[in-house]
Amino acid sequence: MAAPVFNHIAIIGAGLIGASVARAAASFGAAGRITLYDADADVRKRAGALDLGEICNSAADAADGADCVMLCVPVGALGASTKAVAGALKPGAILTDVGSVKAKAHDAMAEHCPDHAHLIPGHPIAGTEKSGPEAGFNSLFQDAWCILTPNSVVQKNYPDKIVELSRFWENLGSKVEIMDAGQHDRVLAITSHLPHLIAYNIVSTAYDMESVDDGQVVKYSAGGFRDFTRIAASDPTMWRDVFLNNREAVLETLGRFSEDLAALQRAIRYGDGDTLFNEFTRARGIRKAILEAGEDSDAVNFGRHTKP
Amino acid sequence: MAAPVFNHIAIIGAGLIGASVARAAASFGAAGRITLYDADADVRKRAGALDLGEICNSAADAADGADCVMLCVPVGALGASTKAVAGALKPGAILTDVGSVKAKAHDAMAEHCPDHAHLIPGHPIAGTEKSGPEAGFNSLFQDAWCILTPNSVVQKNYPDKIVELSRFWENLGSKVEIMDAGQHDRVLAITSHLPHLIAYNIVSTAYDMESVDDGQVVKYSAGGFRDFTRIAASDPTMWRDVFLNNREAVLETLGRFSEDLAALQRAIRYGDGDTLFNEFTRARGIRKAILEAGEDSDAVNFGRHTKP
Repeated sequence: MAAPVFNHIAIIGAGLIGASVARAAASFGAAGRITLYDADADVRKRAGALDLGEICNSAADAADGADCVMLCVPVGALGASTKAVAGALKPGAILTDVGSVKAKAHDAMAEHCPDHAHLIPGHPIAGTEKSGPEAGFNSLFQDAWCILTPNSVVQKNYPDKIVELSRFWENLGSKVEIMDAGQHDRVLAITSHLPHLIAYNIVSTAYDMESVDDGQVVKYSAGGFRDFTRIAASDPTMWRDVFLNNREAVLETLGRFSEDLAALQRAIRYGDGDTLFNEFTRARGIRKAILEAGEDSDAVNFGRHTKP
Repeated sequence: MAAPVFNHIAIIGAGLIGASVARAAASFGAAGRITLYDADADVRKRAGALDLGEICNSAADAADGADCVMLCVPVGALGASTKAVAGALKPGAILTDVGSVKAKAHDAMAEHCPDHAHLIPGHPIAGTEKSGPEAGFNSLFQDAWCILTPNSVVQKNYPDKIVELSRFWENLGSKVEIMDAGQHDRVLAITSHLPHLIAYNIVSTAYDMESVDDGQVVKYSAGGFRDFTRIAASDPTMWRDVFLNNREAVLETLGRFSEDLAALQRAIRYGDGDTLFNEFTRARGIRKAILEAGEDSDAVNFGRHTKP
């Protein structure tokens, strides 16, 4: 096994992602020492029992002397978490995160990140609908994209730090891409944020009808709905923070979605079968594009919700 | 192996469902003779090459002398298909279908069904996003619900025929339920029809943004969106007919969905995190209900899109 990318990584937040990073880093030798902290004492205890790394009693203790401090917390907690580790960050340390929103994440961390540390926001596009340290597994990032969104100053002055963090994610099995934070947020608004909002919403709508239907909505939920319930089982805190922190892109995308849906609704109301057929055929095409791009193995699928 | 439920079943339409019924009936001994017809000459040829049954050159030829004639065609083709087989239906024969809409399906078939045959509309809640005879497999109906919606006259006068068709589906591995056609259509509007409409729509919306984003929507489609593209890969003709024939229930459900979505949109716009958190938490609950109902094995999942 080659030398670890980081002699010491600190993981703040031991949920699904934090626990998976810890397991993967240990399994694939990407980090030497692994220190962990979670704001929830019960989660710390469970993470300890799972042997995920050295459990510390504060974020600062965990971050002390680390080559890389990775904040695996909801986007809304990034500012406070950065503040908590700021004093412990050693010169040259990398500060990164794993949030699904990147522009606001950068700003929240930048506000408290000392000049002698290097802020490189990141987003591994991987996950399951499960939460907590027990949900983590070491192959979660295998063949998944990980997007890094360093600002132009870091890109110009500390390219070696970006290379280092890239190598870490590559050791965990990811394909790394550097992207502008705003562009990331626009792309993810349609590929991830809106789908989750829609899934939450349709399940809520069904839930209200459920009382009318005496259990039948749940009973006969095979055809399509079940996929939505799985997506809608994702962590509410994490997703609340995503929507609060990617508001503009989500509202813009949601506006387009609603316009398009109104057109389909009108076609249904007036029995316009040609419009429905043409739209459905068009939608089918993008699936074909994904298959042709070879991006559809179960391994890179959101659907990878069971441990291998 | 016990005696087959039907000495002779005729399957009209050799797509995913028709081919799966043929394979399952043969595998599990639910039918003796299996005759098949498809309006598409190329599909007939492929069904023959797949050895799905005796391929006939007309729907009437296939139906001639059959104990059960099962129309596995889009809902919009049920009327014409019934007309095509009507003259060949023997006294006491069961005429059934597999459409996702039941009230309009009943009426379309009833218009042409002779009095000496017994109309029992049906809907196996099973499927994949694939189409065509090659997509069929014998375990598609295993552990899936199959809903039968006989009208009150048939329920009163020919209960033995309902028992017969139920036994056939049970032989294929299904759990059978008798339901009112209107109730079926209301339940399926939220559990299946709306989810498919939403999936088609979000993929279309993304498709339009795709040109802006230069391939990135497809590239980073892991988180949630990919599930939608799979659902949206379903057969456009079948789904067009579903929406045209379950208009009232779909529009009613879509109205509720849009109201609920507008509330989430407002919460995002005004930064109302509590509303988002509470709604997401509520939605998560229905997933829990499904898991507790034990309905979530992959075996009964829409996600069962690969052959076992």
